[in-house]
Amino acid sequence: MRMRRKKYLEQRLEECGDYIIMMQTDDKNFITALDNKTYLDFYELFGNDNPVHLEIGCGKGQFACEIAERNPDINYLAVEKVANVIVAAAENAKSRQIPNLKFLKGGAEYLPCYIPDNSIDRIYLNFSCPYPKNRYANHRLTHRNFLKIYRDIMTENAEIHQKTDNMKLFEFSLEQLSQNGFMLKNISLDLHNSGFEGNIVTEYEQRFTDLGQPIYRLEAYIPRLTENNE
Amino acid sequence: MRMRRKKYLEQRLEECGDYIIMMQTDDKNFITALDNKTYLDFYELFGNDNPVHLEIGCGKGQFACEIAERNPDINYLAVEKVANVIVAAAENAKSRQIPNLKFLKGGAEYLPCYIPDNSIDRIYLNFSCPYPKNRYANHRLTHRNFLKIYRDIMTENAEIHQKTDNMKLFEFSLEQLSQNGFMLKNISLDLHNSGFEGNIVTEYEQRFTDLGQPIYRLEAYIPRLTENNE
Repeated sequence: MRMRRKKYLEQRLEECGDYIIMMQTDDKNFITALDNKTYLDFYELFGNDNPVHLEIGCGKGQFACEIAERNPDINYLAVEKVANVIVAAAENAKSRQIPNLKFLKGGAEYLPCYIPDNSIDRIYLNFSCPYPKNRYANHRLTHRNFLKIYRDIMTENAEIHQKTDNMKLFEFSLEQLSQNGFMLKNISLDLHNSGFEGNIVTEYEQRFTDLGQPIYRLEAYIPRLTENNE
Repeated sequence: MRMRRKKYLEQRLEECGDYIIMMQTDDKNFITALDNKTYLDFYELFGNDNPVHLEIGCGKGQFACEIAERNPDINYLAVEKVANVIVAAAENAKSRQIPNLKFLKGGAEYLPCYIPDNSIDRIYLNFSCPYPKNRYANHRLTHRNFLKIYRDIMTENAEIHQKTDNMKLFEFSLEQLSQNGFMLKNISLDLHNSGFEGNIVTEYEQRFTDLGQPIYRLEAYIPRLTENNE
């Protein structure tokens, strides 16, 4: 039974081949993988040189599909490591025929092998797994190890936009960002009562809002040198 | 009637003369005031050279009296601009005979005239007035203009500790601190459910907690140069 399900998954992944790039993350030796950089050619991938925005941890792609349809002049690359989940996202994008959205399967730690430096104009982190236990803190997508990766691939004026329903993850994110060279702006501790416009509300987000729980949101950017040394 | 009340206030202030230093802030010309620095001599004031912590906006002094009694080896200087309020704080400290607590009457913008550079080990901002209207944003005690003043009077390892029940003020504070050379740590978006120990709960704070509203708290510090340029 497990075999058959896996076979079916592989078939589905194959049928979405135009939408999914598989990162070769099976290699147990992460350092070796980092040595074998195979940078994506965004022009080849999207057929234009529009700005590229990255969503890390896209789940079933509801946010990615919606924002890509709303902004045809921006290219979106959505990263997700769970095969069962990213295949649903790619099927969604394929059925809606969204040309400016592609998916990248694999963990965010492998991004330096695939994304060229200074190439990403925005990074979205939506409702990332909070990894509540402290010993898994380095799995959180705003851990300083990931921030270093983001910093390298971000352009000079790029921003990170994070949303979460998890208070502890948000506290952690504010601290990690401020302690690792990012500045914060447009912080909201209750997004849905903040007057913020243009928010894309996923099913997941709506569920927490319906329970009366606040959604937390921040934007982070790398200060220019002059600003930093003011 | 107004005359009599004022007279009575002046008498009360005089009776607490050992506890209150009056900043000469009547001068309409702020620049002139800044030219006439009359630095406090902390050794003369407290009779020892223990570290000095500052509370800005101490209200009726409940927090200042409590923390000063708990920490006899730290000197506390509590700043408040409203005369009616600071006199009650000083009377409280006087009746409890707290030797390591003094009060400074006047607005925080005059601190550079009275507090020497690099002399304060910690600054407390407790439930500061939020000034909700944007046109009064520069009155908020975490506005960048005030942060510059704090930065000058803080020692190398000093910290700012802020608590508030006001969400918008807390969002503003996080942004201003991160954008003006401070790093953030120990952020709590729900202090009373965070496991934080040693919190001094004032009546004002308890009132909001009883209503089920969260208390926000942060600590901010000036990064060392090596950390900043990492």
